[in-house]
Amino acid sequence: MARPRVLICGTLGWTQQECADLFEDVAEVIQYDSRNRTDFISSFQPGGRYEDVVALYKDGGSYFLGPFDRELIGAISRSVKYIANIGAGYDQIDTDACRDNGILLTNTPGVVDEGTATAALYLMISVVRQFAKAEQDIRAGRWNFEHSAGSAHDLTGRTLAILGMGGIGMRLAELARAFPMRIVYHNRRKVEDAPEWCEYFGIDRLDEMLAITDVLSVHVPLKDDTVGFVNEAMIRRLKKGAVIVNTARGKVIDEEAMIRALEDGHVSPTGFTDTTTKAYHSDHQLAGVGLDVFTNEPDVDTRLLELPNAALLPHMGCLTRETLEKMEIRALTNLRDMVVTGSAKDVVPELR
Amino acid sequence: MARPRVLICGTLGWTQQECADLFEDVAEVIQYDSRNRTDFISSFQPGGRYEDVVALYKDGGSYFLGPFDRELIGAISRSVKYIANIGAGYDQIDTDACRDNGILLTNTPGVVDEGTATAALYLMISVVRQFAKAEQDIRAGRWNFEHSAGSAHDLTGRTLAILGMGGIGMRLAELARAFPMRIVYHNRRKVEDAPEWCEYFGIDRLDEMLAITDVLSVHVPLKDDTVGFVNEAMIRRLKKGAVIVNTARGKVIDEEAMIRALEDGHVSPTGFTDTTTKAYHSDHQLAGVGLDVFTNEPDVDTRLLELPNAALLPHMGCLTRETLEKMEIRALTNLRDMVVTGSAKDVVPELR
Repeated sequence: MARPRVLICGTLGWTQQECADLFEDVAEVIQYDSRNRTDFISSFQPGGRYEDVVALYKDGGSYFLGPFDRELIGAISRSVKYIANIGAGYDQIDTDACRDNGILLTNTPGVVDEGTATAALYLMISVVRQFAKAEQDIRAGRWNFEHSAGSAHDLTGRTLAILGMGGIGMRLAELARAFPMRIVYHNRRKVEDAPEWCEYFGIDRLDEMLAITDVLSVHVPLKDDTVGFVNEAMIRRLKKGAVIVNTARGKVIDEEAMIRALEDGHVSPTGFTDTTTKAYHSDHQLAGVGLDVFTNEPDVDTRLLELPNAALLPHMGCLTRETLEKMEIRALTNLRDMVVTGSAKDVVPELR
Repeated sequence: MARPRVLICGTLGWTQQECADLFEDVAEVIQYDSRNRTDFISSFQPGGRYEDVVALYKDGGSYFLGPFDRELIGAISRSVKYIANIGAGYDQIDTDACRDNGILLTNTPGVVDEGTATAALYLMISVVRQFAKAEQDIRAGRWNFEHSAGSAHDLTGRTLAILGMGGIGMRLAELARAFPMRIVYHNRRKVEDAPEWCEYFGIDRLDEMLAITDVLSVHVPLKDDTVGFVNEAMIRRLKKGAVIVNTARGKVIDEEAMIRALEDGHVSPTGFTDTTTKAYHSDHQLAGVGLDVFTNEPDVDTRLLELPNAALLPHMGCLTRETLEKMEIRALTNLRDMVVTGSAKDVVPELR
């Protein structure tokens, strides 16, 4: 009997030998090497070269296929029963369409916590200390940077509010606790295994939390009901001088509202009150942002590039060699388990 | 009887009112507002406008006076008996000349630990994760950054070697312990109040420490016998792929030797072994640097600006509003204590 066929959609940078080893005697592994969505979809139709492929591995190298929306999912579901996605987020994949077409989907939770929480810590320090601006200045030959130490602050004793207390948020809480910062969080439900020093604020006390927040770090997954979750009202309720860090997904924040609040909140370059603008006196001043993700990435709103206190990274929160290797092994293990047993450890909550 | 006169050489940005309060009934406070070394020195001569000034406050705003070398110290010592310097480092002031001329000098140790250790943590993350390069890329419109995640690493489990275990090094150890990293240190003597998880390596085991070091963070004060302390031999003995972080003083490292090691150690942009250069195969590869201080600051060696993995800040390790306020109060308190009692808590070790 022919072995089932699995298709690798992505780069599989580090674990090609492990992939071969994992699927030896289990399945035939094929690498997708076209870069064309139309070709991809048509290849799963009768007579196409992937008409009998039962399972897909998907990593960031498959970006050229576009979203795994109802159209694509429907087309490949003639044969495909399993998709193993790399990374914690799977907003690129329509889980309703998966369910309707009998496809099981896995992700790789946990593995990204370390890398992403470290990126959030970096962005938090950069914004609170105004290092991003200073680093641009020194590279432009300006030693006496244009900002003032008067608007840079120590982190110790400040309040870090974690929005979405999953693995990444919990890891960031541990790292920030070292200063120590005061750690508060909002989550749909109180997280029972969170340490007692993480103070929970339910939806009824969300405004209260925002009012004491120095740094708001966003760790909410992108789903239909979390698009624009951090909206204008939430941003305007933050403590004056607060900063926002986002390592989750750009669309979880209303980026337009955030940019408006930043533009309102300009601090004068001297760090002293600038009485010529009403902005500094606003009760709604947002002092800076640290962003690894953007609404229209890879396009970055040019206003963010020009704002004086924005630390920006090109969506690389979990990109380390160690994390990539772990994610690849975990996704491939999920893929193998699904092919062999019909299920896997990391089936996403929507499809359990 | 006329009150003694004290001279403020610097900006005194935050605590002008506190300064007035501290010296009310104790001394007359004068602000030095010329920006001219020759004028400064001549003003202390007989008939000059500062001929009877007994004490000086000195902060970064006095940079235009140049070094407080034997010439300057000798000239002002006709009347000056006390200098209160802001910051932990006082390499700009000749302590031998102070002693020979009967001048007492204070600094502000401890206060800078928080800010400087946080800057070192930031630079460490930036270099190990290759964020400095990525941030330059995104600002230049390059989303797909030229480096590879293959040469970015998690910090957890890596070894941080602290060179010079004073207050700043100890604070960095606490912050890095949160990952956790393994913490090792070299110091002239074992630090008795260091936690047991900080492993001491004496001079006889320095090579052993360097060979296991992933991140070498430099916290050695600049003195005659520490110029170029981190020399070519030490740099070349670091574990392959190690990075150096310096938030102390530029001249503590042989900058030329460090740049040579960086140039030898280029990793190919793909992150894969580049068999066309022998550099990557060198056992002496230095993978990156995070620098807040430079040998000829404010001039920065242009090669550092061009290297692919250098995170650079314009000497702002301790520049936060909270730290500046604390430093100013501490320096002014030392100044007041010396004027009133003839000594102060923070007299530098060389003059005790």
